[in-house]
Amino acid sequence: MGGHEIEQLIRLLGRLPGFGPRSARRIALFLLRDPQARLVPLARALERAGEAIKTCSTCGNLDTVDPCHICTDPLRDPGVVCVVETVGDLWALERAGVHRGVYQVLGGTLSPLAGIGPEDLNVGPLLERLEQGSVREVILALGATVEGATTMHWLMDKLAFYEGVTVSRVAQGMPVGGALDVLDDGTLAAALGARRPA
Amino acid sequence: MGGHEIEQLIRLLGRLPGFGPRSARRIALFLLRDPQARLVPLARALERAGEAIKTCSTCGNLDTVDPCHICTDPLRDPGVVCVVETVGDLWALERAGVHRGVYQVLGGTLSPLAGIGPEDLNVGPLLERLEQGSVREVILALGATVEGATTMHWLMDKLAFYEGVTVSRVAQGMPVGGALDVLDDGTLAAALGARRPA
Repeated sequence: MGGHEIEQLIRLLGRLPGFGPRSARRIALFLLRDPQARLVPLARALERAGEAIKTCSTCGNLDTVDPCHICTDPLRDPGVVCVVETVGDLWALERAGVHRGVYQVLGGTLSPLAGIGPEDLNVGPLLERLEQGSVREVILALGATVEGATTMHWLMDKLAFYEGVTVSRVAQGMPVGGALDVLDDGTLAAALGARRPA
Repeated sequence: MGGHEIEQLIRLLGRLPGFGPRSARRIALFLLRDPQARLVPLARALERAGEAIKTCSTCGNLDTVDPCHICTDPLRDPGVVCVVETVGDLWALERAGVHRGVYQVLGGTLSPLAGIGPEDLNVGPLLERLEQGSVREVILALGATVEGATTMHWLMDKLAFYEGVTVSRVAQGMPVGGALDVLDDGTLAAALGARRPA
């Protein structure tokens, strides 16, 4: 299948999440069929993104500046910190445009099985901000999983230490636009349990 | 969602076949979370493959040498040429290891609707080889589509001109390991029509 350089490209593409040997070959062929229009711009974009990428030392976001453009945005409220597991979660909330405060990206969840303990989570900058007294509310937007729940309770214990700080968590319930009969039992129970006056 | 370099990377990833904005973001995040281990090697592999890639002037294969390593392999029979539509088809046959001759990659099929005519297909090198008298057999391994059939008949007309050359086509029938009841009617008809003594 072509020379060493082509095989190496297919091997690396095959390591991307969701890729197998088949999709790696398809993408490699797509790129190699028109290198100038397809492969070269992608290689250049990767190189530039790799050179520019920085992890925000305040919130853990990935950006090309540190602190990131969210942390330095004067229109955002630094008094409301939304805690998320991953940068992907942060991006999802930003796309939705529903949070006007700032973030703290933990970089994972507590998971004894995977060997992830409290020291592996990026929570220090949040505690620093709390100690400075600049935070009014912490919103916990962690995944509705066992690990997410474990992490949330551990964080709530830590946050109870800071007086005058409201700790809230995102609601569980029916997804908007979702039909009732395709929801799992856990979601149905949560949606029913959190019912509000109509 | 991060700086301009990150957005540009997501935009280019989103143009890959089978990608949407969601998968482009997922792959970008995967690469950017660990640039040294993930992004940099991929960027380098792309760059190297882009520099090394050549189209074989004999058969149309993509390789890092021209003529490609198949055309120059002394163990292969240059007297048997297998005609395929794409380099992907050639790679599939090579993985299967079922063809010990050489190839001719057309680069597509005749398709008046898509504006692809005979002059767009890479058939010249095949005719040259036929004129040199070095070819005993041409195997047509084109897709079982309307365009594939059209292209095959057009090629058979062209090849009829060369005496002493056997022109064959790959058999249609049941895929090996396939169950009868999931096959489409066309495949069933072809498999039945091409039945052989048991």
